[in-house]
Amino acid sequence: MIRGKVLACALVLASLLVTSVQGGNILVFPVDGSHWINMKFLIEALFARGHNITVIRAADSWYIEKTSPLYTSITIQSTGMFDEVYMKTYINRLLEILRQGSTFARLKLEKEVWDKAVEMFDKEKEMMISIIEDQQLIQSLKDTKYDVYLTDPVLISGILLGHYLKLPLVFNVRWTVQSEGHYAIAPSPISYIPLPMSELSDHMSFFQRVYNVILYFVTELQISYFLAPNYNALCHRVCGPEVNYFEIVQGADLWLFRGDFVFEFPRPTMPNIVYMGGFQCKPPKPLPEDLEDFVQSSGEHGIIVMSMGTFIDSLPHDAANAVAEAFAELPQKVIWRYKGEKPSTLGNNTLLLDWIPQNDLLGHPKTRAFVAHGGTNGVQEAIYHGVPLIGFGLIWDQPDNLSKMRARGAAKTVDFATMDKNSFLQTLKEVLYDPSYQENMQRLSRLHRDAPIKPLDNAVFWTEFVMRHGGAPHLRTESYKMPWYAYHSVDVMLFLLAVLLLIVFTTYAVIRYFCCRLCMRRKTTKRE
Amino acid sequence: MIRGKVLACALVLASLLVTSVQGGNILVFPVDGSHWINMKFLIEALFARGHNITVIRAADSWYIEKTSPLYTSITIQSTGMFDEVYMKTYINRLLEILRQGSTFARLKLEKEVWDKAVEMFDKEKEMMISIIEDQQLIQSLKDTKYDVYLTDPVLISGILLGHYLKLPLVFNVRWTVQSEGHYAIAPSPISYIPLPMSELSDHMSFFQRVYNVILYFVTELQISYFLAPNYNALCHRVCGPEVNYFEIVQGADLWLFRGDFVFEFPRPTMPNIVYMGGFQCKPPKPLPEDLEDFVQSSGEHGIIVMSMGTFIDSLPHDAANAVAEAFAELPQKVIWRYKGEKPSTLGNNTLLLDWIPQNDLLGHPKTRAFVAHGGTNGVQEAIYHGVPLIGFGLIWDQPDNLSKMRARGAAKTVDFATMDKNSFLQTLKEVLYDPSYQENMQRLSRLHRDAPIKPLDNAVFWTEFVMRHGGAPHLRTESYKMPWYAYHSVDVMLFLLAVLLLIVFTTYAVIRYFCCRLCMRRKTTKRE
Repeated sequence: MIRGKVLACALVLASLLVTSVQGGNILVFPVDGSHWINMKFLIEALFARGHNITVIRAADSWYIEKTSPLYTSITIQSTGMFDEVYMKTYINRLLEILRQGSTFARLKLEKEVWDKAVEMFDKEKEMMISIIEDQQLIQSLKDTKYDVYLTDPVLISGILLGHYLKLPLVFNVRWTVQSEGHYAIAPSPISYIPLPMSELSDHMSFFQRVYNVILYFVTELQISYFLAPNYNALCHRVCGPEVNYFEIVQGADLWLFRGDFVFEFPRPTMPNIVYMGGFQCKPPKPLPEDLEDFVQSSGEHGIIVMSMGTFIDSLPHDAANAVAEAFAELPQKVIWRYKGEKPSTLGNNTLLLDWIPQNDLLGHPKTRAFVAHGGTNGVQEAIYHGVPLIGFGLIWDQPDNLSKMRARGAAKTVDFATMDKNSFLQTLKEVLYDPSYQENMQRLSRLHRDAPIKPLDNAVFWTEFVMRHGGAPHLRTESYKMPWYAYHSVDVMLFLLAVLLLIVFTTYAVIRYFCCRLCMRRKTTKRE
Repeated sequence: MIRGKVLACALVLASLLVTSVQGGNILVFPVDGSHWINMKFLIEALFARGHNITVIRAADSWYIEKTSPLYTSITIQSTGMFDEVYMKTYINRLLEILRQGSTFARLKLEKEVWDKAVEMFDKEKEMMISIIEDQQLIQSLKDTKYDVYLTDPVLISGILLGHYLKLPLVFNVRWTVQSEGHYAIAPSPISYIPLPMSELSDHMSFFQRVYNVILYFVTELQISYFLAPNYNALCHRVCGPEVNYFEIVQGADLWLFRGDFVFEFPRPTMPNIVYMGGFQCKPPKPLPEDLEDFVQSSGEHGIIVMSMGTFIDSLPHDAANAVAEAFAELPQKVIWRYKGEKPSTLGNNTLLLDWIPQNDLLGHPKTRAFVAHGGTNGVQEAIYHGVPLIGFGLIWDQPDNLSKMRARGAAKTVDFATMDKNSFLQTLKEVLYDPSYQENMQRLSRLHRDAPIKPLDNAVFWTEFVMRHGGAPHLRTESYKMPWYAYHSVDVMLFLLAVLLLIVFTTYAVIRYFCCRLCMRRKTTKRE
């Protein structure tokens, strides 16, 4: 009887050990800028679970704080990789150029961006090599016995260090250096999966499919001839000559993917992709009193919220005036996050603020529409709170994000280059007064929220799963280790074709031989 | 203030409405036999959630009870499709033939099985047509306003009725009529995904890949030339001439898949596949006193459990004697579910029982090994309880199930045709005394149990999700509606090739034209 109880206690204890990781050690190699905001959400959640978190940051880091109650930081030398001033200058110049409509100026700017990217990659290489040459740092990282290594694969160095330290690898991912995350590990038939930046949907016309295929080849060429040689050169330097960078990426244990199938089009996926789209979204907190009063003063008309993300806190003069003038003609109240000079056309109904509690405003029942740049986080928050979008979609993934919402009838886009008061006002009115936009976004919101586990909890669960089991190899195919001709069964097909030809040829030869023999015998018989 | 409270209450109420479906109506079209056992688990769970369940059954049903506290049944005329006597006779003949080693007799038996399958399909057709011609039945099914239609796609009729009634379609699935469930909707690269019945793993040698590709072509030919014409003929009769049977299958909203990636090899999957492998597994209940005494009497050696599934409750004489003799030489105690004649070699350590509480025995801490036929449910229970397997793997998916466990080092298989006391004893001893088998199975058990939500709860959640939202189209690609040449981008590639050829040809023609002009001019100049 007592033995039975001891056994029962042991079983309970064992199950507790299995379902929790007490104070595990997590090493994080984040990417600076807006990516850090996403990583910090995950770090907060992991910290709340009692884990010890170490974050590697550069001395000149942009957003990543040296001291934080959430983590211990390891500061490496300045990398010069993240240049906030450059980024803001670039965006402001881009906005001016878009409004001027000068293709030449746009191309010149893009050339500068490319050069900057090359310069940044050189700096990344320097940083990477300095890390692995710092024997003291490496030894201390090895000695700490981390249970898991968390990084954002939009930069190569984080992945390489994880592999170098031989730690179970978890990605907090939407993009890898080569493309959208899925493309690295999941089969992606290009007939119905639009390439990133294509602004296509999963239902394409023939010529859209042609465009998608061309885009695919361009991307592949870019990866093969520009990116792969550079990445593999650094990879060989860090991890040894036999290691292929792309195989390290594909070999990651877990992909915590910043998206879900309310946001993304349905597509093949892999067992080690965990969808955590909207993991940063929260129910709204009450607004500060003065803001709540302003919102309530909108009455039945409700409010419009406008914010263009971290980087865009002002607009070129004429664009700002057009936006303000359009807002002024609406009965709604408007809250606009704007740091630039006050537009001369600003109406009494519009409140300019340096900073807005965006999540709380989007979650307010009086909010009718969200005017945004189309960044992923903003779009996810709009989905979560069921607020239809009016989007500009200027750079990076913004046009694509908005095109996904457009395909669901939950957003309209405005062409920033040609926008004037009338066109902007018309778009605003369409989204405000055609109820389908709100209905569609609220349907997306219901679908997104209706999940058996919250996205952030899911992400934390699977990160801890990797910690508990030292990886998740059973969820990961090792097909990435196959050469391309084997993966696509080209060698087998050629072999079977050869066998088939051999059979056909042999059969033909045998038949011919016997036919000839028969003919000769007949001839001989006739002669006799 | 009061308005705020009313709003808060309304929001709580709305969220409750979103997260539960009070007494939804579920129509179930199950498949008889062992498939019904699986469906019943799901029905029990859905019943516990307060839903009204209606089950369609045949008057001569094998297992599906007419009256049950769980559901209301609709009894259709006898179909003669499920013939328990035939099935048991077939299995017993197969076992005899396997032991005799007569290839001719085996082929003759397989021919009979094929004829029986054709006969069964004819009966299924009759049943299907009689259902849709029964206007009263159809009208009553339409009037009831079911929220979801649950079926097992191993038979075609269930799928067709669901489509006919235009209800959101949920599959409780491991097999479809054409192959393993995944093949119908998820890309399945045959270089690392073994075809069903191949007994291959996801790491194949060149010649294993050749075998896999050949098997793929054989399966495809079988589907295209034998199955598709028959299925589509019935489909056209029921759903109209423009409807393709395979498109209905691919268009299902949700696939509740009886497997997971502890059981299956990792592979591409789709967003609307919900893995519920091991959904039937439960913690063990205490054994009846006499059985517990017998188990405890095994001391430190522990016990072996043997059961060959629903259909095989006896073995040919010589096989039974070999098994019993091998058991008799072990220090373990053995509990063997066996209804046949008592083997003459039976040892004192072996208890024969007509029926065993299999789950409770497998979950008993004294259980050291499970001797089984390799049916899915038994293998899943062995994984759940972490008990290593010794398997026979006689028919259907049994050899494949066992080969998956063998690849993980958690099972050994015995060749039933050639098995004798010595070979069986050796296999038993290897699994009992090489600790790796138990360690591997217990590792699988830990991985399987370590999930954020229990498999059955997950299945119920997603079924109710479909009920709440009237389907789950956002999780399902519509790529199945594309013709094969478009899906594989063949048309686009040909178009691009044509454009490329046109450019090359035009450039060549232009260059040739100017070269000729140049040559002619020179000749003219020379002549001058």
